[in-house]
Amino acid sequence: MCQLLGMNCATPTDITFSFKGFSQRAGITSDHSDGFGIAFFEDKACRLFVDNQSAVESPIAELVRNFPIKSRNVISHIRKATQGKITLENSHPFMRELWGRQWIFAHNGDLHHFNPRLTGRFVPVGNTDSERAFCYLLDQLVERFGYTEPSIHQIFTALEQIAPRIAEHGTFNYCLSNGQALYSYATTKLHWLVREHPFKAARLIDLDVEVDFSQVTTAKDRVAVITTEPLTQNEVWMPYQPGEMIVFQDGRPIKQALTRVERLEREALNPELKRITRADQY
Amino acid sequence: MCQLLGMNCATPTDITFSFKGFSQRAGITSDHSDGFGIAFFEDKACRLFVDNQSAVESPIAELVRNFPIKSRNVISHIRKATQGKITLENSHPFMRELWGRQWIFAHNGDLHHFNPRLTGRFVPVGNTDSERAFCYLLDQLVERFGYTEPSIHQIFTALEQIAPRIAEHGTFNYCLSNGQALYSYATTKLHWLVREHPFKAARLIDLDVEVDFSQVTTAKDRVAVITTEPLTQNEVWMPYQPGEMIVFQDGRPIKQALTRVERLEREALNPELKRITRADQY
Repeated sequence: MCQLLGMNCATPTDITFSFKGFSQRAGITSDHSDGFGIAFFEDKACRLFVDNQSAVESPIAELVRNFPIKSRNVISHIRKATQGKITLENSHPFMRELWGRQWIFAHNGDLHHFNPRLTGRFVPVGNTDSERAFCYLLDQLVERFGYTEPSIHQIFTALEQIAPRIAEHGTFNYCLSNGQALYSYATTKLHWLVREHPFKAARLIDLDVEVDFSQVTTAKDRVAVITTEPLTQNEVWMPYQPGEMIVFQDGRPIKQALTRVERLEREALNPELKRITRADQY
Repeated sequence: MCQLLGMNCATPTDITFSFKGFSQRAGITSDHSDGFGIAFFEDKACRLFVDNQSAVESPIAELVRNFPIKSRNVISHIRKATQGKITLENSHPFMRELWGRQWIFAHNGDLHHFNPRLTGRFVPVGNTDSERAFCYLLDQLVERFGYTEPSIHQIFTALEQIAPRIAEHGTFNYCLSNGQALYSYATTKLHWLVREHPFKAARLIDLDVEVDFSQVTTAKDRVAVITTEPLTQNEVWMPYQPGEMIVFQDGRPIKQALTRVERLEREALNPELKRITRADQY
């Protein structure tokens, strides 16, 4: 398994506070030491740092902890390998270009017997279930929208259909961003919170560090943080319900839906529906 | 204009010596200070560092100078902006996935009135002539080979046809790699050399640094270095002839061709040929 960290903000914000705590889990407060990665959007482009060393030892992670890169959308991942070797090509997040934007994807969980037919438009470079899921997901977006870029709401609606199909193969918690918004989905574990005016102090769980955000923010700032396990001890983290999908823009959730639960409930009421939908899935 | 640096090796090699000299040109020995980038392949995957700060000031460049990342294919670029703003999305090298490999492209030169029809399969994220050329080039590879990965020699033959068409729009010196080989092409300026056994000492031009490669190599090592302007004062750098294309593998040129010159000569002999070929170009 792995751990995820996402950040979506109203104004460009640096993630050093959260990343300091999060990266402790790559060998100190937890054992997610099989590589790490972090992606920072600047508009449609993305700065992506990946390393097959742990986020505790990697000099690249050290740079990220100390060099405040400001961004409105950030996705980070620390890996505990379950499928795929510890190589660079298997390190999350994964990046692909679609509709003239970079797309970034990181996954926590395990997918079994997940071998969808891919069109060839997006081909995994490594051999993880996660990158396969990312390629399938983008393939499905292209199938629905062709080469015309859809709106955030259209993408959300498409992901509501696509994500539960992948989730039938196992645990599927992910963060996905194209620099415009941050899409997130959880079948088992993910938490979120929003920090906004009036800001307060926050204290990390994994490291003895406290920041008083009221001293370093303005009223215009607003930050949503998404993470596998809560990062701070004195803030209220909202757990995702199984099958919950949330898209964040400008530092707050703009659309939420319960996909998998609704779907399983529908299927429980009508087993015939299950057979038809599953057969149709690839 | 910009400057290029490429390295192709028989065994994973670090580029710190060459990059130390090269990055001096981003503000100290020259004025290529509008962003920099460097890509290191590890098999089919790639570690890409880009920054819109200069390679002299960027903390990311500082990391690259001091942290020896070993790779068999490296492409770096320092930018002096001529087209496109100094933003992250306009910083070379550019990266796209094709046939389950990352592809990296960096360009030195200016293209004018270069607005080819693109299929939508690869869309520029920024607004440089260079990224447009990269997307066109990959589009053309997909048009020729579909979703079946061609051999190095097939790619070379395709590039021999595609590159001169783009070069008709201006200066087109580039380095391109998919982690398997490094393809290079020059219409005006590019130099190369091969370092191999018996290795000698080399002294940088831009910095007072000398390395005796015989002390830090084995007989198995072999390194080809490609650069806009020679990096060392005591080695023989081969200039590319106008229109020369060279593909490097395992640290040496494996195929060379003169594309543009041959083409212009053919066209000079038969102006009708020029009209037909140009009309057919997109």
